[in-house]
Amino acid sequence: MISVKQALQTVLDTTQDFGIEEIPFIQSVGRILKEDIKADRDFPPFNRVAMDGIAIDFSSFQNGQRTFQIEGIQPAGSEQISLQNSENCIEVMTGAVLPNNTSAVVRYEDVVIENNSARVSIETVSDRQNIHAKGKDGKVGDILIQQNTKISAAEIGVLATVGKSMVKVAKQPKVMIVSTGDELVGVAKTPLAHQIRRSNIFTLVSLLEKLNIPSETAHITDDKPILKEKIKNYLKEYDVLLFSGAVSKGKFDFLPEVFEELGVEKLFHKVAQRPGKPFWFGVADTLRLDEQGDSERAVKRTENKNQKNTIVFGFPGNPISTYVNCLAYFYPWYYKSVGLETQEENAILADDVIFKPNLTYFLQVQLSYRYGHLIAIPIKGNGSGDLASLVHADAFIQLPKTEEIRFKKGEVFPIVRYR
Amino acid sequence: MISVKQALQTVLDTTQDFGIEEIPFIQSVGRILKEDIKADRDFPPFNRVAMDGIAIDFSSFQNGQRTFQIEGIQPAGSEQISLQNSENCIEVMTGAVLPNNTSAVVRYEDVVIENNSARVSIETVSDRQNIHAKGKDGKVGDILIQQNTKISAAEIGVLATVGKSMVKVAKQPKVMIVSTGDELVGVAKTPLAHQIRRSNIFTLVSLLEKLNIPSETAHITDDKPILKEKIKNYLKEYDVLLFSGAVSKGKFDFLPEVFEELGVEKLFHKVAQRPGKPFWFGVADTLRLDEQGDSERAVKRTENKNQKNTIVFGFPGNPISTYVNCLAYFYPWYYKSVGLETQEENAILADDVIFKPNLTYFLQVQLSYRYGHLIAIPIKGNGSGDLASLVHADAFIQLPKTEEIRFKKGEVFPIVRYR
Repeated sequence: MISVKQALQTVLDTTQDFGIEEIPFIQSVGRILKEDIKADRDFPPFNRVAMDGIAIDFSSFQNGQRTFQIEGIQPAGSEQISLQNSENCIEVMTGAVLPNNTSAVVRYEDVVIENNSARVSIETVSDRQNIHAKGKDGKVGDILIQQNTKISAAEIGVLATVGKSMVKVAKQPKVMIVSTGDELVGVAKTPLAHQIRRSNIFTLVSLLEKLNIPSETAHITDDKPILKEKIKNYLKEYDVLLFSGAVSKGKFDFLPEVFEELGVEKLFHKVAQRPGKPFWFGVADTLRLDEQGDSERAVKRTENKNQKNTIVFGFPGNPISTYVNCLAYFYPWYYKSVGLETQEENAILADDVIFKPNLTYFLQVQLSYRYGHLIAIPIKGNGSGDLASLVHADAFIQLPKTEEIRFKKGEVFPIVRYR
Repeated sequence: MISVKQALQTVLDTTQDFGIEEIPFIQSVGRILKEDIKADRDFPPFNRVAMDGIAIDFSSFQNGQRTFQIEGIQPAGSEQISLQNSENCIEVMTGAVLPNNTSAVVRYEDVVIENNSARVSIETVSDRQNIHAKGKDGKVGDILIQQNTKISAAEIGVLATVGKSMVKVAKQPKVMIVSTGDELVGVAKTPLAHQIRRSNIFTLVSLLEKLNIPSETAHITDDKPILKEKIKNYLKEYDVLLFSGAVSKGKFDFLPEVFEELGVEKLFHKVAQRPGKPFWFGVADTLRLDEQGDSERAVKRTENKNQKNTIVFGFPGNPISTYVNCLAYFYPWYYKSVGLETQEENAILADDVIFKPNLTYFLQVQLSYRYGHLIAIPIKGNGSGDLASLVHADAFIQLPKTEEIRFKKGEVFPIVRYR
């Protein structure tokens, strides 16, 4: 049984490049940028008036002049005009081009306008004041957004400004989510006494939606030939298969055998963690699988660059196991695949925690901000089947595998946040 | 000029209930739940086998018996069977109903199976072990998710489990986003020397998308009669109007006049903050506006319960002003309107900050997690027009209005996060 650290490294070693697509910029929020965004002009592109008021030739003010005849008006969005007489002024609006032959803007609050003449009512005016100088925020050609940035509303504004109506982003992997388990019925059905409703595929869909990954779902009955036939097709069609259930020791836990028979290379099965221990993880070289034509068995993964891998995450079927493994393994796999660097978050344990098994413990916690400290308050649940306990938490805190039994209040550990 | 605190309180006093709608549960992520979700059965609904293995009558083990003949099998999803002879056992799978007349489950790892007989290879077995007891996580009728919860993947799982294929959520307000400013051209256009491209409406669309609020957008030229005609219609059609620009002192900043002439009650104009000071905020009783028929002027807002208000946020046109005001005012207004309680986040200032104007300062910061501390690293920008500087930050830290000039490294202040 491998450690969480080894398991994560193994998962990260299988990351793939799904290529690039160009999409309308307004649909790109949450996606990963795949080009550097450069300034198409200086920022601002002209000496920009930064306050509503009057534009003057600063040397006139310096020479003691305080009253300026209004020669014209320069609204935002109009072509630049010129001050004809350096003893006059031009009314200017925020966002306008600074008129030619002017060198300072005095805001309306600091002038008195009467009879088409503006008197400056303050003592001090500085050269270039209230002017947002051409190129101050950036020069044409400067990189404004680096490739591999996750696009938020802030980036959307920059994309609009530089005219990137279409933008290159990382393509999303094509994902199929499969549940197994004959005890499961649909959400709209009334289960019999021995049945429960499906829920894991929907939590997985929602967790992927958070990454803007669309996914498809299927439920397959616990029947080995049917499982094999369907999974064989999924392996050819999808980049990633996420399974929930049928990876443990049960008589009907056919998935590990089916994977093996279909040529999916097992990279590990079982991780020293709770919950989520029976996690099965593997890779299929589906290009080779295709080449085999009718053969049921694909050859093992190679280092061949022409391979097209399908990644298989076989999550244990308990709701919390599926949930935490998606966050702890699929999320980092996805981030690395699309080139997004993420920051590890950590939090301070609010209570002592006693945990005897020598396993990494993903413990549900509520997060609270106190004086700049992020506090993790453990939530009492009833084990990996207790789906409802997820509702009361915000994250999992990752307590390391150790022979020590007690984790102390005040100690800091990494967290995996889901809210 | 009112304080940020007063402005926020005024904004929050105008929150409204937009009602409830019922939508497919799988589309409800990010929405605010408007019903308590109750357990439709006990959780688990039956004594649930928690490990793959054999189910025995514990008293037989207690009486010294170690080898049990296998009488049958109880898969998950099958009707409950009964152990006929208390000296036998039944093979059981995780998720199955515990067979009648059995009271403990011994996992496969701890038994040796030969010739249809299972020998327990461990010394200690406890009564009820590896059984997830009926109702342990919740009883039928228990509230599993409280009304007013923001729905995440965790809640989706619970909704599926209790069969809520349709779920009641808060209706979203109907929002129109309007930009003004004749210097603005479309994203796909090449601006002339004195023009720039529109960006604020797109950042606003994206900021609202983060709240799952769809919005419409329009650009209106700086022409008072046109502005008036269009806004009059928007006031009737929408719950919220967000404007960017035309609220300051410029000659073409017609919005405050237009709002007044259309009967929008001004609740404040200008807030003691930087950036975003010329923020205009008001409310129109649009039901009354309708009743006036052709009259251009609606009467002022009343305390009448039959009123239908349209809320008008007139954000200043500088990109950072629009951005921060949307986060600092519209977001809390929305949260309160839909009934979501939020937690204030705060962070520790990483450097001294000197700020002379006696205004609340929303300063862009990068966030970093260090040993459970949330550190806010100030980002140098070139003022409220410097859109590109938003890309390098994650949040605004809110430094209070004070005559003190220096905010010290290590001090803790609230943050408004946008990543």
